[in-house]
Amino acid sequence: MRVEQDFLGVKQLPADAYYGIQTARASENFPITGNKIAPELIRAFAIVKKAAALANRERNQLDIKIASAIVQAAEELKNGQWHEQIIVDPVQGGAGTSINMNINEVLANRAIELMGGQKGSYSLVSPNSHVNMSQSTNDSFPTAIRIAVITLLEELIYIMKKMTDTFQAKAKEFDSILKMGRTHLQDAVPIRLGQEFEAYRRVLMRDIERISQTKKHLYEINIGATAVGTGLNADPIYAERALQYLASLTGYPLKSADHLVDATQNTDMYTEVSSALKICMINMSKISNDLRLMSSGPFTGLGEIRLPHRQPGSSIMPGKVNPVMCEVLNQVAFQVIGNDHTVSLASEAGQFELNVMEPVLIFNLIQSITMMKNTFEVFRSHCLEGIEANEEVCSQYVERSLGTAAALNPYIGYEMSSIIAYEAQSKGISMRDLCLQKKVLKKEQLESILDPYRMTEPGIAGEKLTI
Amino acid sequence: MRVEQDFLGVKQLPADAYYGIQTARASENFPITGNKIAPELIRAFAIVKKAAALANRERNQLDIKIASAIVQAAEELKNGQWHEQIIVDPVQGGAGTSINMNINEVLANRAIELMGGQKGSYSLVSPNSHVNMSQSTNDSFPTAIRIAVITLLEELIYIMKKMTDTFQAKAKEFDSILKMGRTHLQDAVPIRLGQEFEAYRRVLMRDIERISQTKKHLYEINIGATAVGTGLNADPIYAERALQYLASLTGYPLKSADHLVDATQNTDMYTEVSSALKICMINMSKISNDLRLMSSGPFTGLGEIRLPHRQPGSSIMPGKVNPVMCEVLNQVAFQVIGNDHTVSLASEAGQFELNVMEPVLIFNLIQSITMMKNTFEVFRSHCLEGIEANEEVCSQYVERSLGTAAALNPYIGYEMSSIIAYEAQSKGISMRDLCLQKKVLKKEQLESILDPYRMTEPGIAGEKLTI
Amino acid sequence: MRVEQDFLGVKQLPADAYYGIQTARASENFPITGNKIAPELIRAFAIVKKAAALANRERNQLDIKIASAIVQAAEELKNGQWHEQIIVDPVQGGAGTSINMNINEVLANRAIELMGGQKGSYSLVSPNSHVNMSQSTNDSFPTAIRIAVITLLEELIYIMKKMTDTFQAKAKEFDSILKMGRTHLQDAVPIRLGQEFEAYRRVLMRDIERISQTKKHLYEINIGATAVGTGLNADPIYAERALQYLASLTGYPLKSADHLVDATQNTDMYTEVSSALKICMINMSKISNDLRLMSSGPFTGLGEIRLPHRQPGSSIMPGKVNPVMCEVLNQVAFQVIGNDHTVSLASEAGQFELNVMEPVLIFNLIQSITMMKNTFEVFRSHCLEGIEANEEVCSQYVERSLGTAAALNPYIGYEMSSIIAYEAQSKGISMRDLCLQKKVLKKEQLESILDPYRMTEPGIAGEKLTI
Amino acid sequence: MRVEQDFLGVKQLPADAYYGIQTARASENFPITGNKIAPELIRAFAIVKKAAALANRERNQLDIKIASAIVQAAEELKNGQWHEQIIVDPVQGGAGTSINMNINEVLANRAIELMGGQKGSYSLVSPNSHVNMSQSTNDSFPTAIRIAVITLLEELIYIMKKMTDTFQAKAKEFDSILKMGRTHLQDAVPIRLGQEFEAYRRVLMRDIERISQTKKHLYEINIGATAVGTGLNADPIYAERALQYLASLTGYPLKSADHLVDATQNTDMYTEVSSALKICMINMSKISNDLRLMSSGPFTGLGEIRLPHRQPGSSIMPGKVNPVMCEVLNQVAFQVIGNDHTVSLASEAGQFELNVMEPVLIFNLIQSITMMKNTFEVFRSHCLEGIEANEEVCSQYVERSLGTAAALNPYIGYEMSSIIAYEAQSKGISMRDLCLQKKVLKKEQLESILDPYRMTEPGIAGEKLTI
Repeated sequence: MRVEQDFLGVKQLPADAYYGIQTARASENFPITGNKIAPELIRAFAIVKKAAALANRERNQLDIKIASAIVQAAEELKNGQWHEQIIVDPVQGGAGTSINMNINEVLANRAIELMGGQKGSYSLVSPNSHVNMSQSTNDSFPTAIRIAVITLLEELIYIMKKMTDTFQAKAKEFDSILKMGRTHLQDAVPIRLGQEFEAYRRVLMRDIERISQTKKHLYEINIGATAVGTGLNADPIYAERALQYLASLTGYPLKSADHLVDATQNTDMYTEVSSALKICMINMSKISNDLRLMSSGPFTGLGEIRLPHRQPGSSIMPGKVNPVMCEVLNQVAFQVIGNDHTVSLASEAGQFELNVMEPVLIFNLIQSITMMKNTFEVFRSHCLEGIEANEEVCSQYVERSLGTAAALNPYIGYEMSSIIAYEAQSKGISMRDLCLQKKVLKKEQLESILDPYRMTEPGIAGEKLTI
Repeated sequence: MRVEQDFLGVKQLPADAYYGIQTARASENFPITGNKIAPELIRAFAIVKKAAALANRERNQLDIKIASAIVQAAEELKNGQWHEQIIVDPVQGGAGTSINMNINEVLANRAIELMGGQKGSYSLVSPNSHVNMSQSTNDSFPTAIRIAVITLLEELIYIMKKMTDTFQAKAKEFDSILKMGRTHLQDAVPIRLGQEFEAYRRVLMRDIERISQTKKHLYEINIGATAVGTGLNADPIYAERALQYLASLTGYPLKSADHLVDATQNTDMYTEVSSALKICMINMSKISNDLRLMSSGPFTGLGEIRLPHRQPGSSIMPGKVNPVMCEVLNQVAFQVIGNDHTVSLASEAGQFELNVMEPVLIFNLIQSITMMKNTFEVFRSHCLEGIEANEEVCSQYVERSLGTAAALNPYIGYEMSSIIAYEAQSKGISMRDLCLQKKVLKKEQLESILDPYRMTEPGIAGEKLTI
Repeated sequence: MRVEQDFLGVKQLPADAYYGIQTARASENFPITGNKIAPELIRAFAIVKKAAALANRERNQLDIKIASAIVQAAEELKNGQWHEQIIVDPVQGGAGTSINMNINEVLANRAIELMGGQKGSYSLVSPNSHVNMSQSTNDSFPTAIRIAVITLLEELIYIMKKMTDTFQAKAKEFDSILKMGRTHLQDAVPIRLGQEFEAYRRVLMRDIERISQTKKHLYEINIGATAVGTGLNADPIYAERALQYLASLTGYPLKSADHLVDATQNTDMYTEVSSALKICMINMSKISNDLRLMSSGPFTGLGEIRLPHRQPGSSIMPGKVNPVMCEVLNQVAFQVIGNDHTVSLASEAGQFELNVMEPVLIFNLIQSITMMKNTFEVFRSHCLEGIEANEEVCSQYVERSLGTAAALNPYIGYEMSSIIAYEAQSKGISMRDLCLQKKVLKKEQLESILDPYRMTEPGIAGEKLTI
Repeated sequence: MRVEQDFLGVKQLPADAYYGIQTARASENFPITGNKIAPELIRAFAIVKKAAALANRERNQLDIKIASAIVQAAEELKNGQWHEQIIVDPVQGGAGTSINMNINEVLANRAIELMGGQKGSYSLVSPNSHVNMSQSTNDSFPTAIRIAVITLLEELIYIMKKMTDTFQAKAKEFDSILKMGRTHLQDAVPIRLGQEFEAYRRVLMRDIERISQTKKHLYEINIGATAVGTGLNADPIYAERALQYLASLTGYPLKSADHLVDATQNTDMYTEVSSALKICMINMSKISNDLRLMSSGPFTGLGEIRLPHRQPGSSIMPGKVNPVMCEVLNQVAFQVIGNDHTVSLASEAGQFELNVMEPVLIFNLIQSITMMKNTFEVFRSHCLEGIEANEEVCSQYVERSLGTAAALNPYIGYEMSSIIAYEAQSKGISMRDLCLQKKVLKKEQLESILDPYRMTEPGIAGEKLTI
């Protein structure tokens, strides 16, 4: 064991721990979720610390040996080393000071080690004075958050693009499959299965657009803001250089926020992301519901499509297979929508110069993106790609239905069409026959007017017809 | 016009207005929703003011003439008069002071009038010193809220009981109708339609229980708490007498909260109501979804039941009829769930001795109960009562389905049952024939084992069977 | 009374009603909220009907006399006439068919009247065949919704711009007022009151940007989509002309959605608006909380600013004045956040070709925008404009606080600064004196380093200093 | 590696895996959250499987050797062995079939091993035919959920009771500390700090009551319901015996639900729990906000109480200490409120005989309870117990404030009191002096009337006074 000290007293630590006294205190204080800090956030923090060390070095504020050691330690952390030393709970009091100090302490001790010192010899490299130099939690944590979220969003968008490509391929594959459209779960008018899949793709394309747009405000980072956005203790040239290093290390078009007090106290850029995710999952949930309805059966459902069989569906019902990939999609939707609620509550709770609820906010935001990424990928590969149309069932529905009655309106008026459709349904005879019986239209006219395939494109079904 | 004055200055008012300067200020300040204060809340407030006047009179704090005039004015308000004089917006800053003062001013002016005075002659009857005597907004408003909410809940519960009776009648009516159960929207095992309707009734009975339970904490009122619950300016005997008058005027088993500071600052009794409403509407939404699915069609849906036809369903599709009464039920569910969110946010925002967000909280709570009352009544009478089973369709599904395969497990094991069910489905032949073909069971055994009706009650389908 | 008939039977109506049988049925079915359809939505619907009549006329599908009568009736409705005839409840089953038919019936009867006919003589002008010609509820309602929402958003944005201008004026007015920044509600480092107000303005400018952006997808209307987006019964040239009329009547850059099936079944453009509103109100709620905290007092609070006195704050506590305009802002935030929840639930519940939950969705969306408009206007004029700084209190806090200790870090290191700050606080002496006592810095150095005003801008407080 | 097979095909598995092919499929299908199944749920499942094996054994449906092996395996699982073999993600499609099958497979393979067989030799012990005998996922999973949730709730309630005891101790400790009450964050009337802490205790006592009440419906389990609640394949006597074993193994007063179809398809007992948790956290968040406000400072805040110092609060501001234990409480509140939303959405999505969204529902419910347990314990021990009152500051506020003006009402009327209070504030003189100056009350009267301590209990401050 080794002993460390801060202004609140002393504390024993495992001799081989890279983390220090503040991490140990935070660990004791916050045994909340049992989850780990997301690796993307740790990596983003490593980048921030490296950029800060380089910028401080350039301004001669940081000794070259110390700077080099911090930079190397940060690179190691970025590359996945020492993550097990980041032990604080993602949900923590203190607006992220504990995660920042955990990072600072691990990097300081690793840097000390690289310089040949003993862990805990903070006179060599201090977590606060050196690793955290020119920074506060209140600018380094938000900067790390934004970089981590941008990284995750780019991965998500990549996966969403693959998924929309698959929707597009399916839309083409199903373009000629005629089926009944349904509104209110009641027979409406004919449509093509490909049109439905294309509609799914379209709304998801808007979701990609909406999610991508949120990166704009994430690019505006507040490095150099320090404690409250006024930049106290941060040399403006340091801030500029740190930004440049961050931009070059990440490859993202980062810029300094125009007003650092604003950029430090507000969290709207995260609620913006979370809202875009929520909207996307609302849409995905609707699509999943449609797929589950269309594939319902095999004998007592709609049976218009078949989903790939992924696993036995029941521990008691033999041979049962369920739409599990869709079901998990719905559940992820519910999680993301619930998480958005948590994000909103946390964002609303900011006070004055800071939002101390950022830890739970970012915990939920990262969970949402990660679950979406994971789920979209398996949904696409394990379900969407393998969907097959049940063409026969689809066309039987069209034949059976009275949903084509709407096409009569332009010729005999809505009122007469209503009477015919309603009567045909009650009597169980076809509208065609009823029209002939009632002599409202002739056989050839009816053939053209009631052609369901023509009804799936704009225009009056039999527009060339003269009655 | 007449002129009134308070410590902030003077203001012109319409000469015939019963409300006064504070109401006029509040009207100017809060043109927020355009909605009116709910009549149930006005009536409850009238009861509170009457009880307070009677109790103050008994303690000789209030002159007998003034007391009588206030009591009469309050009775008029309770009976529906002067409601148009309650002009403040339900969503208002100030924790309800504006609604309380609107009530106080209207009662004061009406009392003045009854005593032969001119409106605005507050030396005769003062809105604050007389009508509001021994009270604060912070005890009279919560007391009025609780009475109003109890009243509305009792009406709601009455309507819910009627609705569950109808569910029960339907459960009996449909008791013998065999249909396929569905899990995951996939064929499961046989069930009876009456069992499903009974399940709907059961969950709603628990909702009635849950909603009824919330009255317990509502009965604990804080009259006599005055500004912060310490009872400043309120004589304990006054508080006791006011409570007794309230109990006798309402007929509710009201009691004084054990700790008035608690009862003044906390709003958990309202979130409790709102949560119970939310749970109920989650259940109603699920029931509505089931009914919409079962009645889907007429030609491309499940078609197991028929809902009464209430209105033409489309402006373009002739003869189309939609499940509109169910659809409005879902929408009311979404409203109540969203309102619960608003209620939660408002409740969380209490600070120290008071929750100043009560106006929006109670606005949403009253809207939720009112919409539920209104909707359940029309849903029951316009939809539920007239639901008919499509027995033929239901039984066809049972015959067609392989969902009875589970009944084979106890005889041939899950593994073999799976192979048979899956193969039967792929080949499109019946399990019965496949069993015979594979010689795993004999004809008579199969008859007993695969009897779907027996499967709808506990027990191994063919338990007396020896294979 | 007059009698009307549809395919479900006959019904008596008041002889002078402009609405017809379908409206009457809907009224009976949906006594849900008691609210009225928003006038902006009625006006938008009137524009849609006018544009459709003109386009149908151009294609010779509609007789010129009928078209002219419909156009005139629609203009009257747009100008505010006949709104009392729009009697259906905003929350209704049926995806808006009832509101569409209410509009259709009122316009038909008014057109009949203009043509000299008797109300109910639908052979002259039919609500479905003529007023609704080439349309379905499923394209005319969404088109009307989008126009109504755009109109409301433009009004909202105008009011938000005025409000941010006022924030900017206040930011300038308060630019030189030094105060203590607070993080975690604990003393942090100095800041200027103007910086805080500028931060408020900045986040609201992003909200204006976010809200404005949502108009992009609203401009994409689905007129001509008819029932399910396939355009059945709608001539493509009609659709094009109707769009042009709509664009010219509204002045909005409307365009036809690229894929009408998508534009008919999805409601993401509304959740997008609602999310942007929600984010804005999260931010406004935080600002309101800050203002309420800063103005807390007068004797037991922070007392850094004074809000205009708008109304007496208590029915019992004399002379009390509360921050009512801020409190109503918080409450509207809670309403809008709750409404967003309802909107999300409704949006998720779409099925296949349509989202039948649109009525409750649009009811909440319109309520949110309207409440925000109303509230921002009174908040700005009755509160924000009159805020005054309590400069003396602000500067006393700065003097008293130890929050300037951070400025010592670059000179004596974080660890030594911590000891000094913590010891100064415990002993109740100034850091300056403690520094001198401990001989860590000289008097002149301390003067420069601990100058609070310099701390409100980037840079190391005493950067030219050599120690 | 070993090879296993089901009706969908074959799959390779690690030779030493206790889980089998269905688990492997589920693992591939659902890499969603990366979290583990909660140990409480695994243990509850082990109890269910043990009870089922014992009951099946009693009915002679299960061979005694197999039964014994399953029972021993289940005991091991209950005692914490083999948890690493439960590898499926808590968020999964399929209504819990994957978790049930993971349990079944691990128990089967462990039982096989105990019987001397090779893993995968399911002819010895079959996961479905033997371990899952007489069960479906749809009764064994809900039964396990209820047991796990009851267990967690009992732990939570125990911790809450300890916490309320501490609140009570603090209420007593602070009973004599006079301070100003605040409403609207504005000075109200005097109160005692102990009254505030007692109010916190009271609302939490109601939360304990509310949370405890939810156990009632959890006790009603659906063992024996099998697939859809009809009890297919489950002998009623088995069901009765299984229930008895469950009751005795858990010590809980479990009972069989009255209607198993209801108990299988509905999830209201979980939303009920989640709502009670939500209400509790709304209250805790309010309490936390109060504590953060009261402890704000040290120099620029209210400073009425001192929280224990738990960790340095800033990486840049030396000596800063933040209310981190309260902040984490707020964040847990936001998480639980968000989780309740997810739970509600999942509950609403049930369809027909089952709610397939149970996995995400239970994942969130367990997270909520667990986070509350963890957080309440550290909040109590690390924060609440060590709170100290700053008596001097509290009493200074009372002296300074004009909040005692309300006590004048009964003597000089609200209107005159208002004038005096408002004028005293503007002129910066005391009300007492102003009263004397204006000759409205005499010195001795004022002494009695304006005694703040008397104002903290019911009654007119100077009730014996005759003026």
